[in-house]
Amino acid sequence: MKKIGIGLLGLGTVGQGVANIISNPNDRHPLVGELELVGVAVKNLQKSRDISLPESILTTNALEIVNNPNIQIVVEVIGGIEPARSLIIEAIRKGKSVVTANKAVIARHGEEIANEAKAAGVYVLIEAAVGGGIPIIEPLKQSLGGNQITKVSGIINGTTNYILSRMDKEGANYDEVLKDAQDLGYAEADPAADVEGADAADKIAILSGLAFGGAINRADIPTTGINQLQSIDVNYAKELGYAIKLLAISEKDKIESQSQKSQPLSVWVEPTLVPEDHPLAGVNGVNNAIFVEGNPIGQVMFFGPGAGSGPTASAVVADILNIAGIQLMSEDKSSNLDPLLSAKSWRSCHVAEQQEISKKNYIRLIAEDTPGVIGQIGTIFGQRKISIESIVQFDASESEAEIVVITHKIKQGFLKDALLDIKNLHQVKRIAATMGCL
Amino acid sequence: MKKIGIGLLGLGTVGQGVANIISNPNDRHPLVGELELVGVAVKNLQKSRDISLPESILTTNALEIVNNPNIQIVVEVIGGIEPARSLIIEAIRKGKSVVTANKAVIARHGEEIANEAKAAGVYVLIEAAVGGGIPIIEPLKQSLGGNQITKVSGIINGTTNYILSRMDKEGANYDEVLKDAQDLGYAEADPAADVEGADAADKIAILSGLAFGGAINRADIPTTGINQLQSIDVNYAKELGYAIKLLAISEKDKIESQSQKSQPLSVWVEPTLVPEDHPLAGVNGVNNAIFVEGNPIGQVMFFGPGAGSGPTASAVVADILNIAGIQLMSEDKSSNLDPLLSAKSWRSCHVAEQQEISKKNYIRLIAEDTPGVIGQIGTIFGQRKISIESIVQFDASESEAEIVVITHKIKQGFLKDALLDIKNLHQVKRIAATMGCL
Repeated sequence: MKKIGIGLLGLGTVGQGVANIISNPNDRHPLVGELELVGVAVKNLQKSRDISLPESILTTNALEIVNNPNIQIVVEVIGGIEPARSLIIEAIRKGKSVVTANKAVIARHGEEIANEAKAAGVYVLIEAAVGGGIPIIEPLKQSLGGNQITKVSGIINGTTNYILSRMDKEGANYDEVLKDAQDLGYAEADPAADVEGADAADKIAILSGLAFGGAINRADIPTTGINQLQSIDVNYAKELGYAIKLLAISEKDKIESQSQKSQPLSVWVEPTLVPEDHPLAGVNGVNNAIFVEGNPIGQVMFFGPGAGSGPTASAVVADILNIAGIQLMSEDKSSNLDPLLSAKSWRSCHVAEQQEISKKNYIRLIAEDTPGVIGQIGTIFGQRKISIESIVQFDASESEAEIVVITHKIKQGFLKDALLDIKNLHQVKRIAATMGCL
Repeated sequence: MKKIGIGLLGLGTVGQGVANIISNPNDRHPLVGELELVGVAVKNLQKSRDISLPESILTTNALEIVNNPNIQIVVEVIGGIEPARSLIIEAIRKGKSVVTANKAVIARHGEEIANEAKAAGVYVLIEAAVGGGIPIIEPLKQSLGGNQITKVSGIINGTTNYILSRMDKEGANYDEVLKDAQDLGYAEADPAADVEGADAADKIAILSGLAFGGAINRADIPTTGINQLQSIDVNYAKELGYAIKLLAISEKDKIESQSQKSQPLSVWVEPTLVPEDHPLAGVNGVNNAIFVEGNPIGQVMFFGPGAGSGPTASAVVADILNIAGIQLMSEDKSSNLDPLLSAKSWRSCHVAEQQEISKKNYIRLIAEDTPGVIGQIGTIFGQRKISIESIVQFDASESEAEIVVITHKIKQGFLKDALLDIKNLHQVKRIAATMGCL
């Protein structure tokens, strides 16, 4: 049997991980033995690497991979938007299926790429783009299709989860933990994409499209990172029985979709208080977890390593095997695409207005330590029809009191109005923090 | 487009859940809309049910479903060994793919059924047989194939996990919690299959075959249930920082497999101490979780509802959709089977001898409360080359001391010998409990 030709675009840590698996098929699924690494595009032929590959398969010209007739599956592990996007599209047009770990490209150009793939009759699989090694894309596509999915909540950025876990455990400050994380290689020298939430927003855009059947505009996702998070809020949350996690959430609004042209989805990324007994609260360190809710399944969670060469390579190879399995099955006869694996959109979706998002909130206020201030705050929330789960006054310095309010689920528009009123109370000095709460 | 005909064998809670999903495709994957419930075999046509189906599709003759040319996929949700096994085989021989939630049949006759399916060129999918709604079979088959799997550990029986969670939380006795569980419908009137571990053994037999690529003999799995578990051990475990879970484990022995005709696997079911910070420790109530370890993925966990009409129906429909997707793709052209989904064995495996299993152990001894007894116990373990993690003496009545030993990983054959020696110590009255420990 002729082997299935694999071409790699990029030979960084993930690319090397993939090459390692293909070169060592022993003890893995036998289909791994049917794969052959035909070509690898690299930036620098001379660079020393941990893996030794025959020189003849290395090239600095990525188009050689894309155009090679002996390659059936192109694996893009370059990262970034360009030239990754163009190479993916070029490979598709050459009739090759594509596997990519590139969340940035898929979150921004996923629809364009899906349309190209549909026209060419090939697959573009993206298991490694979200959650590292955790099988989540494929379960969403292939295992949960019988469900009406209602909500996807994910801890999908390992760097921030590492920082938050340490802040929670040690009561440490954000800045010092970030520095540690950088020293340990868990955070980049420029950590912005992780700590400001953009990486998580890329990933929830992708998960949202798969869970609800329609792509959303990545740019519309309201995103708050952890870079403004203060350790005092981590500590108060802990005292109240919560862990703070950077959650990326996509939730189907209750409004029935049938009468609408486009289904609104509440999608956001934000540091969120998670009750200690919630499965997501126990997800620590660089681990990721994706919590999916639907009818009739109830709640399921997928947990594992959210990044790293090995786990990400595992996900890339999963996608390669899926395509290889189908190619062996159909033996080059022209056939339709598997509608589950090809995962085309089946409805229009859009990100709902931020003030329409309905959620629980954590609010920390700095107020004068005078009698009656809690009553006044409670009255304002009451007037705005915001029902409150708890108001707790924590110790504070001299005449200042720190007051933490946890609301019930409430539309953010109403909350915004209430917070304006509260700011105008002369006893309230400032609103020091607001976060989501599960 | 002609719809894909589905035949149901059985209309109990799971069967009704499946019929519900197929009858209400709105807001699910559009492929659900391509399914048509063509026939349903029931025991009693007159029985009142929560679901109303056209009388014309109901029959008391299961063979009518199996033989109906308008049915492409037969769903077996009768349970039990016969007639389920014969009907599955008959359906396969009629060229139909089969979806079953029947762990008992698959654990005992999985190989026979797989061989029949291979000969007929059809699929037999079993997502619902393990872990209720949790996607685990398909991820093992389709998402983790690039890995060298080393170990699968599961909380795969909801009844026992409910009982253990309450014993842990409340310090309650096994008997009283069991009775509660029966009253609440979480345990059967005859709870033997759950509490004695047979159900978990069925399921680990299935997971083991998929993870390691070769079927094992279900009857060879050493199985200890929770029915002898005493609350005192739950409490001691808690004091030492562990939760007790009924774990089903399948582990590839380190011995290299290449030189061997059959790969030995350490497979067992046993109440096991799980460290509090292990992801499995936080899995409570009727939830299930499967923890998979491999190279290069590291560790991943799949968590969710382990039973129930809705979750199980979700898993059954996942399998139906997978087969339907492939049927739509190949448009009745004769083609090979997808090697991932058909999941045939690729090596021989067998259950290793119990004394060859290497694991950590918890041992509780009742001894005289005299000086030196701990020293003597320690000496015996030392002579048997068993290294000990901790020996703790707990309070006991009058002259009796309760001594808890936690060993490092050790072959069970060595442990057995050491326990015989210890029993012979005149200061030791009895060995009150032994369990595994992660």
